[in-house]
Amino acid sequence: MAQRTIGFIGLGVMGAPMAGHIRASGERLLVYSRTKSKARLVLDAGAEWRDSPKRIAQECDVIFTMVGYPKDVEEIYFGSDGLIENARSGTILVDFTTSRPDLAVRIYESAKVRGLNAIDAPVSGGDIGAKNATLTIMVGGEEETFQKVKPLLEIVGRTVILQGGPGAGQHTKMANQIAVAGNLLGTVEALIYAKNAGLDPKHALLSIVNGAAQSWQLSNNAPRMLERNFDPGFYSKHFLKDLRIALDSAHAMHVELPMLTLSERLFAKMVNDGMGELGTQAIYLLYERGLA
Amino acid sequence: MAQRTIGFIGLGVMGAPMAGHIRASGERLLVYSRTKSKARLVLDAGAEWRDSPKRIAQECDVIFTMVGYPKDVEEIYFGSDGLIENARSGTILVDFTTSRPDLAVRIYESAKVRGLNAIDAPVSGGDIGAKNATLTIMVGGEEETFQKVKPLLEIVGRTVILQGGPGAGQHTKMANQIAVAGNLLGTVEALIYAKNAGLDPKHALLSIVNGAAQSWQLSNNAPRMLERNFDPGFYSKHFLKDLRIALDSAHAMHVELPMLTLSERLFAKMVNDGMGELGTQAIYLLYERGLA
Repeated sequence: MAQRTIGFIGLGVMGAPMAGHIRASGERLLVYSRTKSKARLVLDAGAEWRDSPKRIAQECDVIFTMVGYPKDVEEIYFGSDGLIENARSGTILVDFTTSRPDLAVRIYESAKVRGLNAIDAPVSGGDIGAKNATLTIMVGGEEETFQKVKPLLEIVGRTVILQGGPGAGQHTKMANQIAVAGNLLGTVEALIYAKNAGLDPKHALLSIVNGAAQSWQLSNNAPRMLERNFDPGFYSKHFLKDLRIALDSAHAMHVELPMLTLSERLFAKMVNDGMGELGTQAIYLLYERGLA
Repeated sequence: MAQRTIGFIGLGVMGAPMAGHIRASGERLLVYSRTKSKARLVLDAGAEWRDSPKRIAQECDVIFTMVGYPKDVEEIYFGSDGLIENARSGTILVDFTTSRPDLAVRIYESAKVRGLNAIDAPVSGGDIGAKNATLTIMVGGEEETFQKVKPLLEIVGRTVILQGGPGAGQHTKMANQIAVAGNLLGTVEALIYAKNAGLDPKHALLSIVNGAAQSWQLSNNAPRMLERNFDPGFYSKHFLKDLRIALDSAHAMHVELPMLTLSERLFAKMVNDGMGELGTQAIYLLYERGLA
């Protein structure tokens, strides 16, 4: 069998280092991104540029996508220049984007009709996880397809788990984001309470970080809030996107999740108030300024 | 100086092992509890029984209290048979109960008038922390008083921190409970979402327990929820008490904490629906049965 060709579409903060790891493993790699300058590092490492998703589709055996919003996913998969229409029979399409579970199902079904296989594979672990290839990858799709791409996924991720059929990866990521939302609200409200009660919040943290209140959010984002470091580890606007996908899915399932509903409302206000480019920990600013 | 005498009032799930550790350290210990049978172990270990808080007050140099609700604290401190009226000048009063910060301030001030010293010292770590003497103790009061009793506190706790003046221990505990509430809502909503989405929630946990969604609640209470083990590690009715204290304090400070408000509403419904004797993880049942 001739050497396979891998495609990678979307070379942002996450995609660029992920594509870099795949290229570094020795695979032939074709890349496309809306902004070509973002491809420089991976092109320097030996990847080849293609001018459109269509060109990627026509030449690759496995194609990864890592873009921003569900509408970007729709365009790349379903546009006239897109993967579903242009990929060769047998190609495996892997979407790393955190996106709508129902869109993942639609991609899978449309791919199937054209003799392609598709899996959804959203990740967690952020830009650091992408750089260090320690991402968690939550996969939905067919077992056989999963087994074929698993060695490639393990190049960029440390915890790679098939969670079920098409969409199951996205649903697992949504469960993850829901837990994050609760922990983040617990963190910010604990700090706002402590501050208003006249405590030294940093000192109060010493008493609460290691017990039943312990969380990644409390350990990592509480100090940033108190140091007024609101730089994006994870953009508020992207978190709002995720919360909306989760809430839409919950509505479709007729499940009431009031904490998620509250989180979506608060992050919508953050983004409306111009804080979408700040990190999720900037919810502390929203509480400081007042929620009304 | 003659050997000092320690008093301990309230020998429930938490108080009994804590008193046991103090007795085991060699201190002369007088105990009182509403239900005498709960004193058996510590009496067997050499503690002495007294028939009322008044008797304890009259004979002790340091008095610990660990009771249920703020009204119990009020009775023991301010009743005609209580500590404030009956303690000898110079006695130090230490309340381990999780109670109202404003009540802690009132105890401190009333104690002061009578030549006594009082500190609030609520704990976290649960019955296991009490048994293993690994509790976190959050202290509010005067530095000098704190230093005097710190060696005794370190007999029952591992992390013993003065957080500020009178009431600061209670406020810190409230911040702790607020963070717990957020993490618990994140945990239950993530699981309810996962289940309704058709995932295997236990399998989904494998993908989310170690990242940004990580929390003590997710690691410890999610498995209990899924195994339908609703035995109390921490009683829902006690958590509701704590949430109400926190919410009352927030209202008094004119701080809006919507996640805390939501948590109080959900736990109030749990207790109303007869689930007060179950553990906090039984909030999973509330979500299963519907929140309306």
